[in-house]
Formats: sequence, structure tokens, C-alpha cells
Amino acid sequence: MNRQSSSRSISHSQSRPSYLRRRTTSASWAEQAQSSEATTAHTDAVINEEIAEIKRYEDFTTIDWVQDAARESLRRKAKRKEAATFLERGEGGKGWRRKVWESYDAGQAWIVVTLVGAAIGVNAAFLNIVTEWLSDVKLGYCSTAFYLNENFCCWGAENGCPEWKRWSNFWLANYIVYISFAALFAFTSAILVKSFAPYAAGSGISEIKCIIAGFVMKGFLGAWTLVIKSIGLPLAIASGLSVGKEGPSVHYAVCTGNVISRFFDKYRRNAAKTREILSACAAAGVGVAFGSPIGGVLFSLEEMSNYFPLKTMWRSYFCALIATAVLAAMNPFRTGQLVMFQVKYDRSWHFFEILFYLVIGVFGGLYGAFVIKWNLRVQAFRKRYLSTYPVYEAVFLAVITAIICYPNMFLRIDMTESMEILFLECEGGHDYDELCERKNRWHMIFSLALATIVRTLLVIISYGCKVPAGIFVPSMAIGASFGRMVGIIVQHLHESFPKSTFFAACGPDGPCITPGTYAFLGAAAALSGIMHITVSVVVIMFELTGALTYILPTMIVVGVTKAIGERFGKGGIADRSIWFNGYPFLDNKEEHTFGVPVSQVMISRVISLPATGLELRALERIIKENDVQGYPIVETPQSKILLGYIGRTELRYAIERAKRDQMATGHAQCVFSSTSESQTLRATTPGSSIPSVTFDSMSVPTVDFSRFIDPTPLTVHPRLSLETVMELFKKMGPRVILIEYRGRLTGLVTVKDCLKYQFKVEAQENPHQDNGINERQEKVWSVIRRITMWADERLDRVREMMGLGRRQEIRLVSPTSVRGEGGGVEWELQDRGGGGS
Amino acid sequence: MNRQSSSRSISHSQSRPSYLRRRTTSASWAEQAQSSEATTAHTDAVINEEIAEIKRYEDFTTIDWVQDAARESLRRKAKRKEAATFLERGEGGKGWRRKVWESYDAGQAWIVVTLVGAAIGVNAAFLNIVTEWLSDVKLGYCSTAFYLNENFCCWGAENGCPEWKRWSNFWLANYIVYISFAALFAFTSAILVKSFAPYAAGSGISEIKCIIAGFVMKGFLGAWTLVIKSIGLPLAIASGLSVGKEGPSVHYAVCTGNVISRFFDKYRRNAAKTREILSACAAAGVGVAFGSPIGGVLFSLEEMSNYFPLKTMWRSYFCALIATAVLAAMNPFRTGQLVMFQVKYDRSWHFFEILFYLVIGVFGGLYGAFVIKWNLRVQAFRKRYLSTYPVYEAVFLAVITAIICYPNMFLRIDMTESMEILFLECEGGHDYDELCERKNRWHMIFSLALATIVRTLLVIISYGCKVPAGIFVPSMAIGASFGRMVGIIVQHLHESFPKSTFFAACGPDGPCITPGTYAFLGAAAALSGIMHITVSVVVIMFELTGALTYILPTMIVVGVTKAIGERFGKGGIADRSIWFNGYPFLDNKEEHTFGVPVSQVMISRVISLPATGLELRALERIIKENDVQGYPIVETPQSKILLGYIGRTELRYAIERAKRDQMATGHAQCVFSSTSESQTLRATTPGSSIPSVTFDSMSVPTVDFSRFIDPTPLTVHPRLSLETVMELFKKMGPRVILIEYRGRLTGLVTVKDCLKYQFKVEAQENPHQDNGINERQEKVWSVIRRITMWADERLDRVREMMGLGRRQEIRLVSPTSVRGEGGGVEWELQDRGGGGS
Repeated sequence: MNRQSSSRSISHSQSRPSYLRRRTTSASWAEQAQSSEATTAHTDAVINEEIAEIKRYEDFTTIDWVQDAARESLRRKAKRKEAATFLERGEGGKGWRRKVWESYDAGQAWIVVTLVGAAIGVNAAFLNIVTEWLSDVKLGYCSTAFYLNENFCCWGAENGCPEWKRWSNFWLANYIVYISFAALFAFTSAILVKSFAPYAAGSGISEIKCIIAGFVMKGFLGAWTLVIKSIGLPLAIASGLSVGKEGPSVHYAVCTGNVISRFFDKYRRNAAKTREILSACAAAGVGVAFGSPIGGVLFSLEEMSNYFPLKTMWRSYFCALIATAVLAAMNPFRTGQLVMFQVKYDRSWHFFEILFYLVIGVFGGLYGAFVIKWNLRVQAFRKRYLSTYPVYEAVFLAVITAIICYPNMFLRIDMTESMEILFLECEGGHDYDELCERKNRWHMIFSLALATIVRTLLVIISYGCKVPAGIFVPSMAIGASFGRMVGIIVQHLHESFPKSTFFAACGPDGPCITPGTYAFLGAAAALSGIMHITVSVVVIMFELTGALTYILPTMIVVGVTKAIGERFGKGGIADRSIWFNGYPFLDNKEEHTFGVPVSQVMISRVISLPATGLELRALERIIKENDVQGYPIVETPQSKILLGYIGRTELRYAIERAKRDQMATGHAQCVFSSTSESQTLRATTPGSSIPSVTFDSMSVPTVDFSRFIDPTPLTVHPRLSLETVMELFKKMGPRVILIEYRGRLTGLVTVKDCLKYQFKVEAQENPHQDNGINERQEKVWSVIRRITMWADERLDRVREMMGLGRRQEIRLVSPTSVRGEGGGVEWELQDRGGGGS
Repeated sequence: MNRQSSSRSISHSQSRPSYLRRRTTSASWAEQAQSSEATTAHTDAVINEEIAEIKRYEDFTTIDWVQDAARESLRRKAKRKEAATFLERGEGGKGWRRKVWESYDAGQAWIVVTLVGAAIGVNAAFLNIVTEWLSDVKLGYCSTAFYLNENFCCWGAENGCPEWKRWSNFWLANYIVYISFAALFAFTSAILVKSFAPYAAGSGISEIKCIIAGFVMKGFLGAWTLVIKSIGLPLAIASGLSVGKEGPSVHYAVCTGNVISRFFDKYRRNAAKTREILSACAAAGVGVAFGSPIGGVLFSLEEMSNYFPLKTMWRSYFCALIATAVLAAMNPFRTGQLVMFQVKYDRSWHFFEILFYLVIGVFGGLYGAFVIKWNLRVQAFRKRYLSTYPVYEAVFLAVITAIICYPNMFLRIDMTESMEILFLECEGGHDYDELCERKNRWHMIFSLALATIVRTLLVIISYGCKVPAGIFVPSMAIGASFGRMVGIIVQHLHESFPKSTFFAACGPDGPCITPGTYAFLGAAAALSGIMHITVSVVVIMFELTGALTYILPTMIVVGVTKAIGERFGKGGIADRSIWFNGYPFLDNKEEHTFGVPVSQVMISRVISLPATGLELRALERIIKENDVQGYPIVETPQSKILLGYIGRTELRYAIERAKRDQMATGHAQCVFSSTSESQTLRATTPGSSIPSVTFDSMSVPTVDFSRFIDPTPLTVHPRLSLETVMELFKKMGPRVILIEYRGRLTGLVTVKDCLKYQFKVEAQENPHQDNGINERQEKVWSVIRRITMWADERLDRVREMMGLGRRQEIRLVSPTSVRGEGGGVEWELQDRGGGGS
């Protein structure tokens, strides 16, 4: 009782004895731990609080899941102890306040998730309304109120709508207005991104994957990114670029989660805990983008998170539920429906159709492989040559897209709308532009084939340009147009040979094939092909359309796509982008067989710190001279008996505190281990929250860093296989694993060392040359340069006409000086340090 | 090159040098590993193969995921090496054969999954047909062909069906026939289970959860269990007992997977790999039971598997797809539909209805908590008193159920059918027995309330009885009747106060409330409440009915249920059964805050073996005197420098081999470590595949066990927190973790030690007394005994009447002598050893 109550009061002098007791060393760990448990826990909690304060992970490093989890557990233990003491002391009067506080603390996660979900829902509703209006404004305007889109303007109108006016009666003028608006929107979006939040460009899925896995990228999930992504996204979509809103939806959702969770103590201090919220936000992002909450949860599980405990699943479920419920309550489209485009097919499928489903599945796989390969090349090109011209690039792409797409009936309209049209069955008056007319059949097949090809090329060049841009919906639109094409061909076949045994399952009269279902399956195939996801695609397609009877065909198509896709390389476009950008991400989809012990990969020449005897100035020099993320502590440099590990951040902070508070001089001896048998010093100064400078009998000043070290880093045997070590990294998530042999430090390994080795092995196995590609890219660049020059002059004139003036000098620089700049993320595994070396 | 080719040929004399080289010790691990990498890999592969042969995990132990993964990786590495050598040697002639073999090896998983999926689908179709026929035969028979059920007998008949005849024209006679059939079916099912496969009783979900997590229960997934479960299940369901087919479906699916995968080399040898297949089978089991493949995958993910990598998800997806596709192709109901009961609601929901959804959600949570609590008590009672009377119990329950249920219109019919009726909306001629009639409203409310209560009580006493029995469908049926009741009340409210502002969202005329949707939501709530699963319930409900517009209400209801359920205890009925039965299962849903170091939990007095100097007979005595699962190897008993770990099974096998093949005597010295610096012996006899007995200069015979040890067991620091150690167990899955301090062995910890500590802490925190309960159970037993006596006499007469004769003596024994017998699984954590102690 006494121990417990003393451990409650957070006074330095009182907690001192426990601290001293920790210094006694005993062979029997169990006894020692038991006797000092209560007091140690408290001291640890204090240290823990302190370290949590200073723990600001540096940019482009990875977080330590093991340590963060241990800290969180200590924090909770301390809280519980505190509560117990309260109860014992009989302070019942203040009980209810305490209880409220406790339930607030316990429910913090749910409060955060609710707030975040609601914010995401509101934002999604806002985005939907703005996007719709901007898209419509390209084609015309509402004469009664300019801020209404076509739907609202014509609300309730049966036939035609006189209030909605096109910009002009001439076809060409409308064409030009359309293109101008496209250019304007793209320009605004790109300039916003460039000026305020370069991280808001692109889809962000790859980066978020790394961040959720523990990578630190400051600003990527910041408030500015959130704002710019939310404003830039409707503009980018309305510009008609072949980009979707789903990737960016995930990004702004995760930003929202990050921004809001920072207001809560629990998450500000614990980077690992925050990742749970981010996973949940990713689910909500997909949930609101597709109106598919369960699909969102599964997407977060399958694609975003490398570690997905059930608790996170429930959080994701809840967050997606709140977000979609808020969106449904706001009801931005006044349809009262969450379902994006509900379709209902009168007929079920026939077993002979599986043959054609296989064709669609194969298409999905090939489409994915093709787009991933070429899009990565375009991205390499963009990185090399275009990174200083993000705005010009976006505008140019928007103009080209507008020029090409306007004439084709399937490309002109919004991608979502075109999908809706393609999904519908012909019966029941769902005919768009005579799509179902028998006489138009060949024309439609041609038109759809053209749409498929053109859109694919546009996606390849557009995805990754410096506006908020996703690849989900464009892929689905491509798949839908291909699928509908196949469907029309099959329908034609059936009508040509109605008596064939192949079509025996069909009824004797009436239609048998529903081309709309092929479009539906095509969309699923393309989405699966590009992202390499399976279960989430099936559920998303479900939730999008409600076509339940087609679950088996959908599963078959997606399965085939997956099998084909795997043949052409592992991982979807997000994984390949991660690889392309060189982020330190251990993919748990991949299984490696290296067959080497970790000793072959580890860094053997580790900079370690002796437990005693190091002068403060020597320590400072060591920190200055290298930039490793942390230092193992050894008993003596000779024995190399491992005592612990100290992170660079903690060490730097501790040194600063020691110098500021204790006036520690450069001569002060640094002490790192409180349990070391070789040291006999006694701490005499009070104050456990700061590194204490003490004077021993020889009156040499010492600085005690022992409470900043991690006395129990994960260690493995040098002969442990590399695969097991990588599993440890993937599943436990430590920052560093130390290699210990018979108690002695023999090496150190980080995720990056593993990845480097993996790349080396992969490069040896599949050697390939980039020279040819580089040359070709150089040629393309010279062509583009010429075209750009020409376009620039034209654009200037347009700008002058529109009274905008020339805002920016355009100057073409040689690629070498361009590299490494621009809005993109340029962090290379090889270039920047961190890690253990 | 030379090294590689020599490493290919599997001859003992050639691999010898590499083996010797491994004995040299060097400080620089990296260099050593590099130089001997190629050869070591080969030797390791040979040892690996050998150990895989002997590796038969003993019953009621856990498997070692880390070692199994390491072995699999070595196996693959060896294969690749072999292939590379083949290519270098230019043996192109045999290339294609080799390629076929290789792709067979790589695709084995997919072949297994396909076969298993198809088998599950066929079995499911068979079960469906038999169940339907047996259920119908209770009510009547087909006069044209006795083997047809009512549906097929009356195929195509519009009004009435003269071919289908009831057994009699008298109500009472039908009642008696109904009860007799119920008793007969229950008797057959129970006697089959009791005689041939006791493990086939119950649902099996808890046990499978443990097995997938790594627990070994021999026979639980055997061929006999599969056969008996498949035959007993239709009988149990047709008997009218309040049991469902979903849990048993999972069980027979997993059995199928286990039986089929045993024919494949890859899985026979690797217990961890087999678990992947079992996860996939669980998905297929739920998939065929509900016609819900994606729901099955999610169920496997959320409920069955504590570790679910994406690869397993794809396997599950594929397996569920094959199984459901086969089932759909067999088309047992001739409806051409996978969907169990498709419903379509004309109206969407209104926001004010959320209030009532909350009521349903709360009901789900309370239902779950109530049933779990009381069912566990009944199970304790059953274990204590009824375990010798499984057959009588089942028959008694079936008779009682039949007597009670026949009069109530919702209880009389099949549970699935009653759900279908309750889900339907009133419009469009879907009226069953005047359910929608306004004048019957209060009667219906009463009837539904009665059905809810009676069914709940029946479920509590029936679930767990010794026939194949699940709890999914009964729970859903209860939820549906409760939900429909709420729906009718709400409908009544609306019709009573149509002008109230609360109902303002309703249209002025016509119906507004759809009671069927409430039934649907009630079913979801009850299912979620009993199993504590969320996402899978939503998807399963979806796939069952296709009611897509109701996704948000479903999510809300399930979310509320989950929140309420969590208040009353962690985990669904499966988790609580695991806890109740004391299986060594670390639930990763639970988060603990112990705040103690592992040193407090570890076993400090570990039986370790010295690397050298132990005589064979001493070793044999050690093995005989205790039953720990394995022994750490230390350099000397004094220094305790940790060198490795050897499993009990491997050690016993190695000793046997040494005695048989080398005629090792009891005086032979055992050598465990090949890298120990303190030993200087040389291995001189050839033959690397058997423990070698060698004679050193002093001519003392030695037995070399070094290749059977694991030189790199997972080790942790004694001060590492228990939470982190438990995370290691959960995520990495080792059998044992050694505690090492400065290179010295200080302890050992197993999952069971962690669980024991956890139970101790939980017992301290929530002390509760079972005396009252036991007394009450004793009273209940005496009542039952009297009733049983009476019933026994009656039953005898019935048997005599039916000419069956008296087959079994019934003798009532006192509970003490009964305990621990019977078909149930009686393994207690406290009773049986294994583990480190």
C-alpha cells in the first residue's frame, strides 16, 4: 500500500529511492523485478512521458513500433496505478470527475474516429457538389442561378430544360469554351499545388502506404496538403483529365485524420497509434469516394496496411460508417442514395458466358501490366525532364485531353457518367444515344474500342502529373468500355447463331446476353488489374451497383486478372511506385528466399558507445561525424557486451538538457547503463526528469543518460536467416535489430540494409539496361521541347487575350540541373542516410 | 561453380567437407557465412528434409511457425540451387520434364485449393439435398417417388400438389410422426458421432481457431470426422434441433482441406503451410453454407485466423470461389441461384428509423451476452453431468424441441424458411399465413415475441450437444423474429400517428415502414452479437439477400451490437469457448497491460543440456523424467552460455537413430554443438544423415546431435516487457522464447506460461465464486435425473414398439466418476503438460 501510494505522487525526491533501487544488480531477474515492480513502473512512466515529449521522429526515417507499443503500455499501466491509488485513498468526492476523465481517455480513439469520419463525410459532400458544378459549367450554365449545376437547375423538369443554357449555339464555339475551361481548371489546380503544397500532387496512395507502415514524411499529411488537395481535386477532375478522385480521396481523408488526431494527446505522442487512425481514414476515404464503406475497409486492409489487427478493422469500419452516413445525410446529389449507380439486371448469367468472362479477365491483367510499365516510364521521364514545369504539363494534358475526347461520345462525358451508361441493360428504356440500337452495333464497337485505346493512352500520360489525380475511375471506365464492346460482340454472335449448341442455355426467344454486365465485369477487371487487389474490388463493385447475382462472374474475372497480372510483375501500381521511388517499405506480399544468415547483410562496423568513460565532447563529436539513427551501448569497446541502444534523437536531446540544466562541461563522463556491474557511481543530485550530473569520489563530473536508453532492444543470433529477420521487421516493426553473439554486439541491421540486399539480389537475377530507354527518352524530350516552345507562344497570346498577363518566365534548362527539384518526392534509398550506416 | 555442382549431388561423402567447415569457428560471421554459404545451404537442406520427416508434432502441442518457415525457405533454396546446377550442366534434354515438375511444385498450392474447393462444393450440394429431403419427410412423403422432397415432388405444380401426401389426416398423428422422426434423426446423428468420431460433435469453430493458430489436435480434422460430420449434420438439422449448419460447414470444409492436402508432399511435411490451406477452407465452408463467398473470406479473416497474410486471403478467395461455383453448377435447389433468399425492398429507409435500429442493435448485443453466458453454464453442466449420455441428451432435446415448436407457426418450419418469410416485405403478394394482415397485428407481435424467447432458450440448451451443430442460423432466426416484431410495432405506431412530426419523412399516403427490413437487421444484429464479428456479418447479410440500400442501417445496427457486446465481455462465443476449454490460444483481439518484464513470467529453472560431456543414458533419463517440449543447449551447466535449442521430438528420434544405426551405448558422450569453441572433437565417420558416433583420441564414443539442434532460437532480454514477448508469440509464432542475459540462458517462456500469468492476473482482478453455481447445477442435475429415469422408461416402450430393442444400458453414475470422459474435448491448460515446465 505504502509503495503504491508513494508511487503516485510525482515528486522527484520521492521517486528517487526507486530509481536507486533499480541500480542494484541481481542475478535473479524475477526477484528483482518483483520487488521493485511498483516503483519501477512509476519511474519508467515518468521517463516515458519525458521521452514521448522529445520523440519527434525525423523526416524520412521510420518509426519504432516496438518501442512505441512499449511506451503506450507503460503509460496505461501508470494510469491504472494512479486510479487504484485514488480509490484506496477514498477520494470518492472527486470520483465522478476522475471517471469522466478516464472514460474520455479510453474513448479518445472513438471520439477521434467519429470526428474524423464526420469531417471526411462533410468534405466529400462539398467535393461532390463542387465537382459536379465545375464539370457542368464546361458545357453550359444555369440561367436562373449560376451556382446551380445542370441537375439542380433542371430539378423536376420532365422534358428538356430551358433554364440550362449551353454557352453558345455554335458547335465550334462550345468546343473552344470546353477546351478553355479545361485548361483554366488544370492551370488553377496545378498552380495551387505547386505554390502551396507540392505533396498534394498525384494520388498519394504509395506514400500513404509507406507512412502507415511507419515511414515519416513530414508535411505529407499536413493541413496545407489537406486544403490544397480538397480544392485542387474538383478542379483537376472538372478539367477533364483522365484522372479519378479515389486516390486523392484517400489522401485527403488520411490528412484529415492526421490533422484532427494531433489535437489529442494520445496520438500526438505516439506515432504508432496514429497509424491506426490513418488506416481507418483510408477506409473512410474509399468509402466516401465510391459510396462503399465495406469496400473501403477491405481496401484499407488489402492495399494500404501491411499490418491490420482486428482493432484497426473495427476502427476502420466505424470511421467508414460515420463518413458515409454523414455523406448520405448531406445527400449532395439529392438522390437519397449512397449507391453511385444502382443497376439491376433482369437476367442471370449462363455458364457458357464464363468463356467470355475469361477474355475480360485476361484483358484486365494485360491492361494493368501495360499501364503500370508505361506509366512508370512516363514518370521517370517526368522526373527527369518535366519536374520544373508542372503547371505547363497539367494545362497541356488538359487541353490535349479536351481536344481528343470531345468528339467521342463515350470520352466526352464524365467518366462516372459514362460508366453508368455502359453498365445499364438495354431493356427498360435505358438507352443512351442509341447504344442499344441494332443498326449501330458496328459503329458502337468501333467507338468503344477507340475509347478504350485513347483513354488508356491518356491515363498513361496523365496519372502522376502534378495535380491531385487518382487512377481508379479512369481504369474502371476503360474496363467498362472494353467490356461493353465484348458484350456487344457476344450479343451479335448469339443473334447470328441462335440455334448453336453453344448458346443452348439461352431461352428460345428474347434477349439472352446482357452487354451491360460485360461492362460491369470489365470495370472490375481493369480496377483489379491496375491495383492488384481482389476481395476489395468485388465488394466495391457490389456496393457500387448492387448486382448481387453477378458475384461469381465478378470473382472469376478478378481471379483471372489477378493470375495474369502476377505473371507480369509483382504488385499493383502503388507498390511499383514505391519501388520506383525507393521508399523503405518491406512489402509483405513478396516472399523471398535468400538463404543467407543475417550476418551477411548486417553492418559489422557499428558505431557503439561504451557504457562509461566517454567524455561528453567525444560523444558530441561522434554524433556530429555521422548520421546514423542510433547507437548501441556496450560495456567496453573491447568486450562489446551489449547493454542497450539509444536513439539519435533521444541522445541529442539528453545532451542538450545536460548542458543547459546541469552545466555539464565537455569533460563530463557519460554514463549510459544503470545496471552495469563495472560502474560504482551513485547519483546524488535530485531531479529524475533531467539527466543528472553527479560527482563521484574522484570528483569527475558524470552525466547519467541511462534513463534514455532502451535496455532491451531486439537482438538476434548472427546465424539467424535473413528471411526470419525480415519477418521480424515486418511483423514487429522495430527500427533496428541488433546482432548479438554470446552477449556481444557483432552487428546491426535495419530495414534499409535488408532492402539494399534484396535489390542487389534482384538486380543480379534480372539484369536490365536502361541505356536504350534513356536515349529514347532524350529524343522524346527534344520533340516535346520544340512543341512546348511553340505552345508557349500560343499560350502567351491566350493569356494576354484573357488579361492575365504573363506570370512566369519559361526557360528550358538542361535535365541535369533540373533533377531533384519540383514538387515530387525525390527521396532516394541510395542517396539519403538514416539507418544504421 | 564447382561448389555449386558438388552441392547438388546428394551423396554423404561429398557433403562431408562442407560439414567439417561448418565446425570451424570465426569471429567474423559475415566472412564465414559467405565462404561456406553454398555448401552449408545444401547440408542444411539435407538435415531439413530429415527433420521434416521426423517432425510429427505431438498431440496437444503447438507448432513452431518460425522453424517451419525457415525449413520451407531452406527447401526452396535447395530446389533453386538444384535447378541452377541442372541448367549449368546443360542437361537440356530433360529440361521439359524438370520444368513440368517445377511448375507442379510451384502450383501445388493452387492445385490443392482447387481440389479442396471442388470437394467442398460437391459435399455442400449433397448436404443441401439430403437436409431438404429429411426435413420434408417429417411432414409427409412423395407418393410418386419417395426420394423426392416436397419441392421436386411438386415441381411445376401451380395450386396444391396431390403427389405430396402428409403422413396422416389427423393433426395429432402428424404431430406424433413429426416428433418420432425428430427423435430418430437426433438419435442416429448422436450415435454416429459417439461411435465413430467424437470430434464431430458441436460446431468445431473454437477448435479450428486454435488449430489454425498452431495447436495440434490429432484426429480433429481427420477423415472419420469428415465423414461423420457430413452424415450427421443433415440428420441433426432435420431433427429440428435449434442448431445451424454453418459452424459444421466450416468444420467439414477444413477437414476436407486437411485430408486432401495430406496427399501432397509440401503440406504433409509442413504444418505451418497446411494452416494456410485450412484458413482458405474455412472461407469456403462459410461460402457454401451461406452462398456467400466473400463473406466467407472475411469470416475466415475476422474470426478464424489470427494471422492472415494477403497470400492466404487470395487462397481463401480462390477456394471460396471454386467451392461456390461448384455448388452453383450442381444447383441443388434448381433455382439457379446462389443467393439463399433474395429480397428486394421497394422503399429505402428514413433517418428517423435509426432510433429503432438502435433498439435492434442493443437487442443483438444483449442477446449475444445472454446466450454466451448461459450457454457456457449449460456447457459446464453438460461436461460435468451429461458427458456419458450424449445420445439420450440429443434425443431428449429433439423431442422437447419438436413438442414445443410444432404449435408455433414461426418455430414449426425450418429456420432458414422462417427467416425468408420474415425478411419479405408485405407488398407484392408475399404474405405468409396472414403475417401482414392488419387485424392479426397483435397476435403476430405476441407470436414473434414467443418465438424469440422460446428459440433463445432452445439455443442455449441445444448448442454444444453432441451432434454437429452451429449457432449462426438459429441466432439469425431469433434476431429476425425479434426484428420483425419491432418492425410491426413501428408500423403500427406510424399508422396510429401518421401526422406526427416524427414520421414527417414518410410520404402522406401509402406504407412507409417495411417490417421485413427490421427482421433483416435483427438477423444481422443477433449474428454479430453471438460471434462478435462486424464486417463479415455485413457482407454475409448482403450476399444472402442483396439488400444493398440497407448497407448503412446494417452497419449501424452491427456497430451498436458490437459496442454493447464488448461491454459484457470480450470475444464471441467461439473465443469464450476457447477460454472455457483452456486451449493455449493467444487472442490477438485482447490487449493487455501487465507492465511486468518477461523475467517474472519465465521459468527460471530450465532443464538445459550441456553441449558436451553428457552421457547418452543420462540424457535418456532426463527425457524420461520430465515432459517438457524441448531443451536449451548450453556450453556448460556453470557458464550457461546459450548455444541452441533442441526439440523433444527431434531429440528422441536422434537418440533412437543413434542407438539403432551406430549401436551407441549408454556410455557414449552426447555432443550438441558443432560450433562450440570448447570442444575439439573431429567427426570421422561418414554419413551426414544419421547421428554419427565417433571415437576421439581417448577412444570415448561420442554421438553428434549437432544437426538436430536449432542454433538460432529466438531470444530476448529478461527485462523486455511481457507484452512485447506476447506480441512476438502472436506475430512470429515460435514455440518457445529463450531468455538470454549477456549470452547466458536465464529462462524460458512459452505461450502457456503467458496464458497462465494472464489468467492469474484476470482472476485477481475479477474474483468470482462458483460455489453457488455448482450448488444450483447439482440441484438441476437431481431434477434431470428424476426426469430422465421417467423418460427412459417411456423411451424403452417406444423402442420396443418400434422393434429396435433396448440397445444400451442406462445407469446413472455419480458426477465425480463421469468427469473427464465423453466425446467433448477435455484438454485442460492446467492438467496436461507440454510447454516449458
